[in-house]
Amino acid sequence: MPEPLARAAQLLARLPGVGEKTAQRFALFLATADEALPRELGQALAELRDHVRPCARCGNIAELAADGLATCAVCQDSRRDPRLLCVVGRVQDLLAIERSGAMRGRYFVLGRLLSPLEGVGAEELPIDALKERVRADQVAEVLVATPPSVDGEATALLIARELGPLGARVTRIASGVPHGGDLEFADQVTLGRAIEGRKSFG
Amino acid sequence: MPEPLARAAQLLARLPGVGEKTAQRFALFLATADEALPRELGQALAELRDHVRPCARCGNIAELAADGLATCAVCQDSRRDPRLLCVVGRVQDLLAIERSGAMRGRYFVLGRLLSPLEGVGAEELPIDALKERVRADQVAEVLVATPPSVDGEATALLIARELGPLGARVTRIASGVPHGGDLEFADQVTLGRAIEGRKSFG
Repeated sequence: MPEPLARAAQLLARLPGVGEKTAQRFALFLATADEALPRELGQALAELRDHVRPCARCGNIAELAADGLATCAVCQDSRRDPRLLCVVGRVQDLLAIERSGAMRGRYFVLGRLLSPLEGVGAEELPIDALKERVRADQVAEVLVATPPSVDGEATALLIARELGPLGARVTRIASGVPHGGDLEFADQVTLGRAIEGRKSFG
Repeated sequence: MPEPLARAAQLLARLPGVGEKTAQRFALFLATADEALPRELGQALAELRDHVRPCARCGNIAELAADGLATCAVCQDSRRDPRLLCVVGRVQDLLAIERSGAMRGRYFVLGRLLSPLEGVGAEELPIDALKERVRADQVAEVLVATPPSVDGEATALLIARELGPLGARVTRIASGVPHGGDLEFADQVTLGRAIEGRKSFG
């Protein structure tokens, strides 16, 4: 394989879920298909970071405005309740929650989760910025929507402990059997949580 | 989603086997991960066509040399038998055959297959260039390695008919490759056997 093609394949292999063989296929496709595509795609990717920045308020993905500031669509939406704050680990999680249409408040993106195994400690999480945000917006409820994994739960506990003294109510997303899921195939922890978190009718 | 991100996702969705959702995932990853990656990948893709060209001799992918000519690694390899010529539909197929290590000759990439259903007729195939190549290199055997699909078989028959009068022996890869299968995804042993078990026309 010619060097420029190998280099393109090598970089494409860093995309999530793309292995060496798929990356080579992508590179070869771009080297042989419609000539405009690699040029347009290349330009779009090279300039991506010039136009797209983390939202200065919440960390969501946002387009850089002419004034040099990036404020995301959620933070610009005045109908959102500023006193309900949803804390997520990654932008991807924020977008998934937005798709559900169930969140009427605003967000705070941590960027990473507490991870004892990977050596990510509390000091690497933006806890001070989160506290400042809770104070400044007089947040009444902080909904912690980190994933129900070991790291996600550890992060949620840290946030609950740190925000407790501020007077805001700290809540956690429910964990249980997913909608459309089958009890037979749910793992034991999920079923255990579904039962612990049971609710009364009416 | 900000417009530059949506545009990147839209272009990424044109990669083979990449749907809208995967493309959005790629775009989001590039917008949030390591800042150097989108810039380097973008540049590599934008410049890909400046450095990579079809080989002037066979159509294989080749790096453009300082003299403005592109000659692929196979055509530069003097140990290859110039009197054995393997005809393939696409560069992907050539690379798959190279991986099998069973081809000791050179190649000719058609670029497309005869396709009555898609309205691709014989006049759209580089038959004259193929004849010229067979004459110039005094090719003794033309191995037709188009896929064992309807279009591939039709193309093979056309080539056998057109090259017959030139005196070269025209052979076809054995149907060790499953019918309707894709050469690009065939395993090396299967491809190697298909080449070893080739048969003469008529």
